[in-house]
Amino acid sequence: MPESPIRKLVPFAEQAIKNGKHIFHLNIGQPDIKTPEVALRAVKENTIEVLSYSRSEGSETYRQKLAAYYEYHNINISHKDIVVTTGASEAIAFIFGSIMDVDDEVIICEPFYANYIAFATAASVKVVPIISKIDDNFALPAIEEFEKLITPKTKAIMICNPGNPTGCLYSEEEVKQLADIVKRHDLFLISDEVYREFTYDGHSHYSILELEGLDEYTIMIDSVSKRYSMCGARVGCLVSRNETIVQTVLKFAQARLSPPTYAQIASEAALDTPQSYFDAVKNKYINRRNTLITELNKIDGVKVATPNGAFYCIAELPVKDADHFAQWLLESFDVANETVMVAPASGFYSSKGIGKNQIRIAYVLNRRSLVKAVNIIKEALKVYKD
Amino acid sequence: MPESPIRKLVPFAEQAIKNGKHIFHLNIGQPDIKTPEVALRAVKENTIEVLSYSRSEGSETYRQKLAAYYEYHNINISHKDIVVTTGASEAIAFIFGSIMDVDDEVIICEPFYANYIAFATAASVKVVPIISKIDDNFALPAIEEFEKLITPKTKAIMICNPGNPTGCLYSEEEVKQLADIVKRHDLFLISDEVYREFTYDGHSHYSILELEGLDEYTIMIDSVSKRYSMCGARVGCLVSRNETIVQTVLKFAQARLSPPTYAQIASEAALDTPQSYFDAVKNKYINRRNTLITELNKIDGVKVATPNGAFYCIAELPVKDADHFAQWLLESFDVANETVMVAPASGFYSSKGIGKNQIRIAYVLNRRSLVKAVNIIKEALKVYKD
Repeated sequence: MPESPIRKLVPFAEQAIKNGKHIFHLNIGQPDIKTPEVALRAVKENTIEVLSYSRSEGSETYRQKLAAYYEYHNINISHKDIVVTTGASEAIAFIFGSIMDVDDEVIICEPFYANYIAFATAASVKVVPIISKIDDNFALPAIEEFEKLITPKTKAIMICNPGNPTGCLYSEEEVKQLADIVKRHDLFLISDEVYREFTYDGHSHYSILELEGLDEYTIMIDSVSKRYSMCGARVGCLVSRNETIVQTVLKFAQARLSPPTYAQIASEAALDTPQSYFDAVKNKYINRRNTLITELNKIDGVKVATPNGAFYCIAELPVKDADHFAQWLLESFDVANETVMVAPASGFYSSKGIGKNQIRIAYVLNRRSLVKAVNIIKEALKVYKD
Repeated sequence: MPESPIRKLVPFAEQAIKNGKHIFHLNIGQPDIKTPEVALRAVKENTIEVLSYSRSEGSETYRQKLAAYYEYHNINISHKDIVVTTGASEAIAFIFGSIMDVDDEVIICEPFYANYIAFATAASVKVVPIISKIDDNFALPAIEEFEKLITPKTKAIMICNPGNPTGCLYSEEEVKQLADIVKRHDLFLISDEVYREFTYDGHSHYSILELEGLDEYTIMIDSVSKRYSMCGARVGCLVSRNETIVQTVLKFAQARLSPPTYAQIASEAALDTPQSYFDAVKNKYINRRNTLITELNKIDGVKVATPNGAFYCIAELPVKDADHFAQWLLESFDVANETVMVAPASGFYSSKGIGKNQIRIAYVLNRRSLVKAVNIIKEALKVYKD
């Protein structure tokens, strides 16, 4: 089980705080956005007397409301196609366990969410990375590149759309290219769509579940964590119209008995969140992104992909080793006693030596803080020596 | 991933209910006991505005209070020895993942909690069963029997104490025998102690964490589910003084980010449950057990082990195939439109053909219902034909 480069920084951050430094956290995807009142209230007003197991697949009412939510978003599924999980994390673990045997392979666009590797390791399966590039704004790699990597052990292609850590939103055309490959090679297409509603600049999200004739191939992963700023609920789900997959996943779900009850109450109620909440949140992120990108582009030698989804971006810095730079920021640098914690991008690559000069920035802070944080990076780069 | 024999019965139970039958559920470990008010209230009175991730290892305050709880129960550990998990289920998965590689083996006393097999399957490791017998009241098998099963691939011995499904509480002497084996063969000793406070007849629980000189070998699993009738919280933990194990488990914990926040609030508050609650619950279970055993012993041809812990017992019936009998009870039998759902014990054995005439009964119903339920079994056995 690998350790993430972000985790390695934690002791340095703790020491910096002990030394009285203030840290701007650009390193984690924990939004500062308030959880919808309707969700918080439902938990406060619950009338549970015996906090008993729920159904292993998630409560019936929650799954039914969730199916209606997807229908509103152009995805026609039945609540029977949904298995509620303890966070998207558990959905990933269940899927890997259900579709792969030991040593099987899943192709994932790199850079990718670091924990994919952890779940693959836990399931004794292999992540085969396919590189997407900052110069292409992390667009989907060419079909031929995928085909070069397909072996008899390949069971699936997995994407995160919009992407963590890239902020890249795949177009309908790109998703359809993937559909073509998985159909031709009889693979599963897994799409982590937890940021599905965070899309900018007039782009809209195209889900793999909108693909026609792909019902047997597609498995979608979702979560309430980011959508409603409910990361601590630990409620996600997986959705597939492939009944065999759902039945297999259910066996994993039954083994762990049920997803958390209180969190399901919050998640079900959250589905009544008014559109105005999302509009406000989206505006906030667009403004933050614009501020962040503008400020980063002012720094000599910094290259940044413009994200059109999620709330992350990857920036290339004029340094050799961003892991070291990130640690140095915490240990040895400050502007008026303030410094920045960033996520070295090396943790999002499994190909050795790639992305060493990149960092991931989560724009989950207000604009004033973002400006300050980027300024600290700017000043740091003036004095930092590799 | 195997399917449990209890799950197989669910459609038959659903059909019986549709047909207007009332079912006494002796098949699951979902207590009817009320959750402590102090835990329920803490959740209702929470003041969360952003439901954010907690720490991967569980909240600091909860772990500290939990360490104090264990100290009160004769177990001296630091909160740093605790990793909070999403149910005991997740603790089992993390432990199997942390101490074993593909094809490694764990020896478990049979009959055992059916889901152990599921977690072993998910981790691609093997459960090696060692049979304990109803005629011995499911006491610990002889040391020599364990030693016969140890191979170079054996990494651990695992017990459930008090036992689900047996209700057997191991004595201090039995636990010390296990200590001796694991030390001699350099194995881990894993103990699932989620029923630790359900002990009867003056017996008290002896935890593997009370063993001296075994700090490097022992890993304990616990949960709030049964203790506080909070099965739906999904909060458990694992405790070990072996720092390497805790660090490895933490990597799994970090991959899934954090345990559920609301449930941790409930669990932390539950630690303030007054002793009177436990005394009342324990009395209730003792009375239920006594009623159940008395009534079962009145039936010709039924043999029952007397449980001194947890809230289960295994009964041997004068039938060839308890799976079939259990299904028949739901499909084809009733007394005044009432029938019984039991758990066929075959699901708790991995050795083929053993326990085929046994069932597990969970005494989680009131005494009046238990008397009625056992009477239904009695009447059923009069007419049932194998």
